This record gives sequence, C-alpha cells and structure tokens, in this order.
Amino acid sequence: MANINQALVFSVRPSERPVGVNLGTLLRRIRKEKKLTLKAVAEKAGVSEGFLSQVENSVKSPSLASLKNISAALGLDTGELLNQLKNSEGLFLIQKSEWDEVDLPHTGFATRRFCPPDERTAIDSALLFIEPGKAIPVRKGLKNVQEVLCLLQGSLELVHGEKVIRMVPGDAAHFWSDPERQLVSNPGEELAVVLWVGTM
Amino acid sequence: MANINQALVFSVRPSERPVGVNLGTLLRRIRKEKKLTLKAVAEKAGVSEGFLSQVENSVKSPSLASLKNISAALGLDTGELLNQLKNSEGLFLIQKSEWDEVDLPHTGFATRRFCPPDERTAIDSALLFIEPGKAIPVRKGLKNVQEVLCLLQGSLELVHGEKVIRMVPGDAAHFWSDPERQLVSNPGEELAVVLWVGTM
Repeated sequence: MANINQALVFSVRPSERPVGVNLGTLLRRIRKEKKLTLKAVAEKAGVSEGFLSQVENSVKSPSLASLKNISAALGLDTGELLNQLKNSEGLFLIQKSEWDEVDLPHTGFATRRFCPPDERTAIDSALLFIEPGKAIPVRKGLKNVQEVLCLLQGSLELVHGEKVIRMVPGDAAHFWSDPERQLVSNPGEELAVVLWVGTM
Repeated sequence: MANINQALVFSVRPSERPVGVNLGTLLRRIRKEKKLTLKAVAEKAGVSEGFLSQVENSVKSPSLASLKNISAALGLDTGELLNQLKNSEGLFLIQKSEWDEVDLPHTGFATRRFCPPDERTAIDSALLFIEPGKAIPVRKGLKNVQEVLCLLQGSLELVHGEKVIRMVPGDAAHFWSDPERQLVSNPGEELAVVLWVGTM
C-alpha cells in the first residue's frame, strides 16, 4: 500500500520548496511589490490595461515584444524574468493566499487561469471570481464539452437545463455543458471563488 | 454583460430543485436509510463487500444482474431504482453534506467518482478522501496525462518531480502527471478531502 514514507524515495528535501509560478502570477507579484497600478504599467508598456490584466490572469500570452515592454515597464530584464519562471516545469499552482491579488474588473467577474494558452491542450482550468449578483458568461457554440465546478468560497447557483442547484463551499458538480440553458451566478453576499475545469 | 437576472429566461422555478444523483450515491443513501451495513447487503446480494463499496463510490458499474441482486438485497425493485436516477441527465453532484457518508477502507483512502464508468470519456473526476499519514497510489503507465487537484479540507503534500508542495484548503494545482516521481499524501492530523480531475 502506498504510504507517506514513500515520499522519501524521491530524495526531495522538504526544506527546498520551489513552487511553480506562471508568468501572469509573477508579473502581478512584481507589479504589486513595486506598488504600481495596472494602468501605470500598461501605459508605460504601451499595452491596454485589459490586455495586461488578461496576461496577469494567464488568459492571454503576450508576444515576446509585448513581454519585453511589460518587463521594461516593471524595471526588469526579460531574461531575468524568464529565469524566475524556470521552476514551473509542468506544474501550475494557485494558492489561496493569492485570491486577494486578483483585480475584479467592472464586469464583476474574473477568470484566473492555471496554464498559459500554449499549455492548454486536453483541458483548461481556472479559478473564477464572481461578485454578488453577477454571473459568468456561457462559453458559446460548444459541443460535447464536459465541465467540473467546485465552490471554494461564498455561494453559487448553477442552472443546468431544468435543474437549479444552490451550492455551498465544498459542493462540486461534473456535467456535460448545456450552453443554451446553463448559467453560473453568485446569489450570495460575498465574493464567490470557484475552481473550474473544462475539456477543450 | 451576463447578469444574474438572465437566469429568468430559462423559466426555471427555483422552488423545484431536482438534483442529479448517481447510482452509487443513491444505493448508499438507501442502504444507510435502511441502516444496513455494506457487509450485510453484499452478502445478501452475493457480491463482495469491496465490489459493493466500489459501486457506491461510482468506481465500478454493476452488471444488470448484479444490480438486480443489490436492489433485491435493499428490498427494492430495480425499475423503481432506475426511475429515481432519471434526474441525473448529464449532471453529477457531490455535496459537502455527503462527505461523511463515505466508508474508508483499511487502506486509508477512498475515491468517490462523480460519473459512472460509461460516462467517463475525456476526463475523469473524483473526490479523494485520505486519512492522516496515508497516500494515494499513483496511476501507473500514463503518458501525456494532465491532472488538477484542489484541497477542500485538511492538509496535503504533493510531490511532483523535484517539487514538494504543502497545500492548505483552497490551494489548487494543474500539472502534467509524472507517475514515476509523484505522490499525493496527507501529512496532517485530520481527514484530507481533495477534488481531483484527470484526463483519460
């Protein structure tokens, strides 16, 4: 039987704990450490604030040219930035301690993806942040897509076909997407945080 | 912009809330309502206790013959049982309130799947229950498989290649499986509950 002691065979010293950080997380972390706003960095880099926010949430990957401009706006060398990413090697982590870092746009919801676009193959994954009274737009035109949702904080209402499911933290659902008759919304009073996984 | 009011267009009355229940959940619920043990039902149905537990956790699907025997052991008609399943229609839910229903075998971990085996195509999903000091056995011989883990309760240690990540509830990771150098274990003092999604 597998046992916790088997971890020893890998000769990993728990004192060294490199944790994979993706580009978006790293850019946001550096920007916040330097106490710069999205707007200030976007203007200096010559990109839109919306684009920079999507890069920080790993929704979009910047071109090398944009990345150079963003690095420069943060006062960093692009090579130095890319070196800091070396540890990610196929593992993308979003820690609960990062939830507060997400900037919610006026739409009232944000999607924070685990993987950059070029690593998304069979599945896509994200944390969804939904303000009270707001909903996540449905992904349109999808067929034979499956999704898994798990509520981590707040309240969630999942409408799926004829069903209406009220979720509390810890509740999870696996379902075939029904884009025409599906809605994920926050009926509660606090920010909802949802883990989402979907097939491509 | 999507708004919670859009839920109204579906003409769903929130007072009717049919919730999809899979076969395993339903069998366990009926068994517990009748205060019968796994052992008693398995013996009466002529199946092993392990097999019945796997059916209840949606790890295995029973043949129609086994299902008839299990239904009979629970004092139910198979048709009546199948009628109760009609509502699931492509949505499988595991509520936090069901966590306590899972029977942990002597191995110290249990896998509670969302979908029955015949519905598992692109992705598989489960809740993993891991006792303190125990680990989940690695899925062997897999290539190009991706996994998402999110800790819902307790503590988790994820060993992935050179990395050792200690997780607290709310932390989540998306990674490429590294079966030779991967271990998921519970280093804490309480039962760990983990949402897991993996590609097939």
